[in-house]
Amino acid sequence: MKLYDFGPAASAKRVRIFLHEKGIQVPTVELDVRDGAQYKEPFTTMNPFHCVPFLELDNGTVIAESISICRYLEELNPTPSLFGQNSEERAVIDMWNRRVELDGFYPALHAARNSIPMFKGRVVPGTRTDIEQSPAVVERGKEMLEIFFGRLDPHLSDNAFIAGAKISIADITCFFATNMATAFEMDLEGKFPNTYRWHQEFSARPSTEA
Amino acid sequence: MKLYDFGPAASAKRVRIFLHEKGIQVPTVELDVRDGAQYKEPFTTMNPFHCVPFLELDNGTVIAESISICRYLEELNPTPSLFGQNSEERAVIDMWNRRVELDGFYPALHAARNSIPMFKGRVVPGTRTDIEQSPAVVERGKEMLEIFFGRLDPHLSDNAFIAGAKISIADITCFFATNMATAFEMDLEGKFPNTYRWHQEFSARPSTEA
Repeated sequence: MKLYDFGPAASAKRVRIFLHEKGIQVPTVELDVRDGAQYKEPFTTMNPFHCVPFLELDNGTVIAESISICRYLEELNPTPSLFGQNSEERAVIDMWNRRVELDGFYPALHAARNSIPMFKGRVVPGTRTDIEQSPAVVERGKEMLEIFFGRLDPHLSDNAFIAGAKISIADITCFFATNMATAFEMDLEGKFPNTYRWHQEFSARPSTEA
Repeated sequence: MKLYDFGPAASAKRVRIFLHEKGIQVPTVELDVRDGAQYKEPFTTMNPFHCVPFLELDNGTVIAESISICRYLEELNPTPSLFGQNSEERAVIDMWNRRVELDGFYPALHAARNSIPMFKGRVVPGTRTDIEQSPAVVERGKEMLEIFFGRLDPHLSDNAFIAGAKISIADITCFFATNMATAFEMDLEGKFPNTYRWHQEFSARPSTEA
């Protein structure tokens, strides 16, 4: 298998942190995304949704979407588990990963895409478009991120990790939500102290340098 | 186990279609969401994210998030499979479900929440908030849905279902994305004929009445 990667992309880094936490190494090719390599052959056929990362299997099947890649690699390498070791654990971790992603990370990602100058002309991931950056989408993303932390914070007062007592894929996703909050100069420490404690602890893990 | 349901909610209907396609029955309780039952005890403690549906297991564990519920029930009832029968199938189906959800269904859902009068005061799922409905969020959701169909349509020219030759959870998710397109009076038939063909076929399945 071969992983097509792009250093700066959050989605790509999600997979690299996962690989580091799992202790797995996968042959990796760096795609020159800033030069539009993902829109050229053979990559545009491999992943017509034009996002990185994506994983090419030896039989030619391509798996895009960071979480789907991680889920696949977890099945091949069950230990240490980041998706859960039985049906119930897997369901609870999946629920938390979705809450973090849908309520926090994605709204924040859209806020970033609609405010950072570098993303002009590509506000929708994997597209080149003339849709303009929207201040209202930025505002909404920040509001949703704040609502999300307001719901997460009480949960983290008596849970070491996002999905409970053990680290999981939901922590990796939440690391990016909290990073965005920091980039937006949100006062995590003052307003969401449990989330801040969790972020400090997770940020100290060597995997976050991956 | 017990499923807490609410008839009109798209997320709840996703689970009901899944149950019907699987041929599973789960004891179900209807929550009076319009009256705010999800904010009252015991439900607010069971699911502090205040969304329906959620599944209560016999040991008290609560699984919220429609896809996490379906994923759990699939593990207990593997046949017929809607999440895939081996690691590769599961990864490909998960990838497609995420593409549909993140690029199509969720942007459209936010567009609906920000335009339909009934959702005033609750533009963010599972919250009561004074955040106002935003025409810019509606516009962006419709734009993203249209971009998504533009990428999906070529794929459906030679695939019977979203994730390939077999029906999967990704089809159930996409059914709601195409329903929203119809509600937004998007010209699926004229602009995205393969998607329209797929939608016509899926809409004819008895499960969609669940």
